[in-house]
Amino acid sequence: MSDLALWRKNLLEDVTQIQSTSPLILSLTNYVSMDLVANGLLSLGASPLMAHAMEELSDMISLSRAVVINIGTLDPFWERSMGRAIEIASDFKKPIVLDPVGAGASQYRTRVCQKFLKMGQISVLRGNASEILALVTGEMKTKGVDSTRSPEGLCEIFLEASQKMGVCLAVTGERDWIFDRQGSAWVDNGHRMLTRVTATGCLSSGLVAAFLSVNPSTLEASWHALSYLGVCGEEAGRKSKGPGSFRAVLIDEMFSFGQSHLEALRGGRIV
Amino acid sequence: MSDLALWRKNLLEDVTQIQSTSPLILSLTNYVSMDLVANGLLSLGASPLMAHAMEELSDMISLSRAVVINIGTLDPFWERSMGRAIEIASDFKKPIVLDPVGAGASQYRTRVCQKFLKMGQISVLRGNASEILALVTGEMKTKGVDSTRSPEGLCEIFLEASQKMGVCLAVTGERDWIFDRQGSAWVDNGHRMLTRVTATGCLSSGLVAAFLSVNPSTLEASWHALSYLGVCGEEAGRKSKGPGSFRAVLIDEMFSFGQSHLEALRGGRIV
Amino acid sequence: MSDLALWRKNLLEDVTQIQSTSPLILSLTNYVSMDLVANGLLSLGASPLMAHAMEELSDMISLSRAVVINIGTLDPFWERSMGRAIEIASDFKKPIVLDPVGAGASQYRTRVCQKFLKMGQISVLRGNASEILALVTGEMKTKGVDSTRSPEGLCEIFLEASQKMGVCLAVTGERDWIFDRQGSAWVDNGHRMLTRVTATGCLSSGLVAAFLSVNPSTLEASWHALSYLGVCGEEAGRKSKGPGSFRAVLIDEMFSFGQSHLEALRGGRIV
Repeated sequence: MSDLALWRKNLLEDVTQIQSTSPLILSLTNYVSMDLVANGLLSLGASPLMAHAMEELSDMISLSRAVVINIGTLDPFWERSMGRAIEIASDFKKPIVLDPVGAGASQYRTRVCQKFLKMGQISVLRGNASEILALVTGEMKTKGVDSTRSPEGLCEIFLEASQKMGVCLAVTGERDWIFDRQGSAWVDNGHRMLTRVTATGCLSSGLVAAFLSVNPSTLEASWHALSYLGVCGEEAGRKSKGPGSFRAVLIDEMFSFGQSHLEALRGGRIV
Repeated sequence: MSDLALWRKNLLEDVTQIQSTSPLILSLTNYVSMDLVANGLLSLGASPLMAHAMEELSDMISLSRAVVINIGTLDPFWERSMGRAIEIASDFKKPIVLDPVGAGASQYRTRVCQKFLKMGQISVLRGNASEILALVTGEMKTKGVDSTRSPEGLCEIFLEASQKMGVCLAVTGERDWIFDRQGSAWVDNGHRMLTRVTATGCLSSGLVAAFLSVNPSTLEASWHALSYLGVCGEEAGRKSKGPGSFRAVLIDEMFSFGQSHLEALRGGRIV
Repeated sequence: MSDLALWRKNLLEDVTQIQSTSPLILSLTNYVSMDLVANGLLSLGASPLMAHAMEELSDMISLSRAVVINIGTLDPFWERSMGRAIEIASDFKKPIVLDPVGAGASQYRTRVCQKFLKMGQISVLRGNASEILALVTGEMKTKGVDSTRSPEGLCEIFLEASQKMGVCLAVTGERDWIFDRQGSAWVDNGHRMLTRVTATGCLSSGLVAAFLSVNPSTLEASWHALSYLGVCGEEAGRKSKGPGSFRAVLIDEMFSFGQSHLEALRGGRIV
């Protein structure tokens, strides 16, 4: 079977397994993204759960199949809940996706993310290049800034950081890149309209968590989640007139994901 | 007049009265649902008000015609505000709808809901069967678990619990059931897509509050609210392609509710 | 060039400059409105940023080109963050828009808004007539209540208050009015459906902030923002079937704003 055929087959298997098991995904996510993350997970076939009280994190995490931590509207109250959720989920060996929204934009966000990375076992760190870079450069002291200016230089940094940190890095952008101990993968699907709707990045982190709940490979789960969103976004871009209709069509496409979406996959994997 | 004709007439009267008086409905609801609850109430013709500060609950409740308490994203901060809102609304004799999201899933939620039920006069408890069951089984100690496995057994439990607790129970599912001292009623309208859009349950609780603001019968108000949402959902299911377009069409249908929706009503009432 | 031609030209120039510079707009806004404000700003071409932690307000405000403070879901926690944001933004000379949601409906809201107006340099106060009136009547002790009953009386009050307070007042309603030291302006565009979608008022405040980030005249920036929203709302009203589809089409229209929208402008300016 060709690599592309295998990609399609494995991705479809993950989606089918999510649809048949409706895994509960606990999301401690920012206020702006809650609606889109919940509706996106429902369209995929997963069950979103938004809860954050210290009083019930243990109950909720024990029921969940994966946990997303998204610091978009961070404050000390969320910081405490999120830190505790990371500790409990690590104890329960549930996969954790950390979305470091705005890391690098404020010292507070960078510091809290670095603390979270040490508090438990983060499975996947999903962000854009500048967010991820802000968090891994501490690990990469010997690299000069110049190497961050070329895509190749960035890939080298991310691959090395991923291996040193023991965390899968899912770096989204015009081309999405995923790096972990197994190797790397990329996705060329997507649509510029995804950058004109708020919280689509947060949605991608939620989707990674959903795929992780049925696929233990962080590389594959992230690759599948981002290609799933990418092809649905592409199709929605063709069928809509602007960001308002795009958002509704995107959810419809995610719900009716199938053969035509699989045929549009563009990307690859180096293991 | 036949029962069905009377149902249609009374439901339409409630809707018309809501549209002509724009009752203010105070909603202390979870973050995920705020947008849909507010837009749903606006489509119906009511005026949504989201406010929760202890400093103004009294002012806001005195302006409102009904109050919704929804514990979807509960924490001790919301717990205090919601408890106080229940006390004040009870003092002011404003109808209160409690939506016990996730009761039974965590001990914290179950405990807080049981406390809320004692803190004031809840008019309607609106949830799915497992949430309601988690809250009423304390009241139903003599019943075995087996009786909860058949729909008939469940109805018997809910009817008895409703009468012992002095609270109308609105239990939503494939068939919606409502129980209070007056009797019981059910609604067979609805669409599976309602389960693929987040917060439609929360929306139904908001609608119950809006109907309670113009109809003092908890049985009728709940019955009307759930059938209104059910027929609009059915029509939206026919006109949409997936959960994304469904959500927009649902709001449009609620806004243009009329004769064609009334003709689609399926359900009944035993008084 | 006629006044209308100048209005069109200047408005389009502002929109073009926003699209080419993607100014970061920091929004401390209520939970209900976050999604619409973020998506509306993205459609216009600006970059929304939602952040509120005391720990990072200084970092975030220094990156931003304007700040919106919206008290829709006020509580003491938000009150502290918002107060601090006003102080920092004033120090950094960033334009601030205050949206006094519900001022007059509770003493708490009125008091907090009056405090905010004194804590820093608010550029524009954007609300409906009753909210603005609740805040300016303290300044207008000699005016009788009767004068508020006619549109002319209201305009006189607002114009005088604006000059005494040194704040631009953007009063939205069927006709939108803007008053500042330069003079006054009005917009007759709009659509009743804008009142059937939650948070469109909040959105208008966010848009005012975006226009302020490229146009230092508070009168012009507010006038342009409200006319931009008004004509897009009008067009969306023609193309949609109810509030659900209206919301999606509104965002699409804002994204594709152009010549046909400019031709629909109705309003004027007295300087």
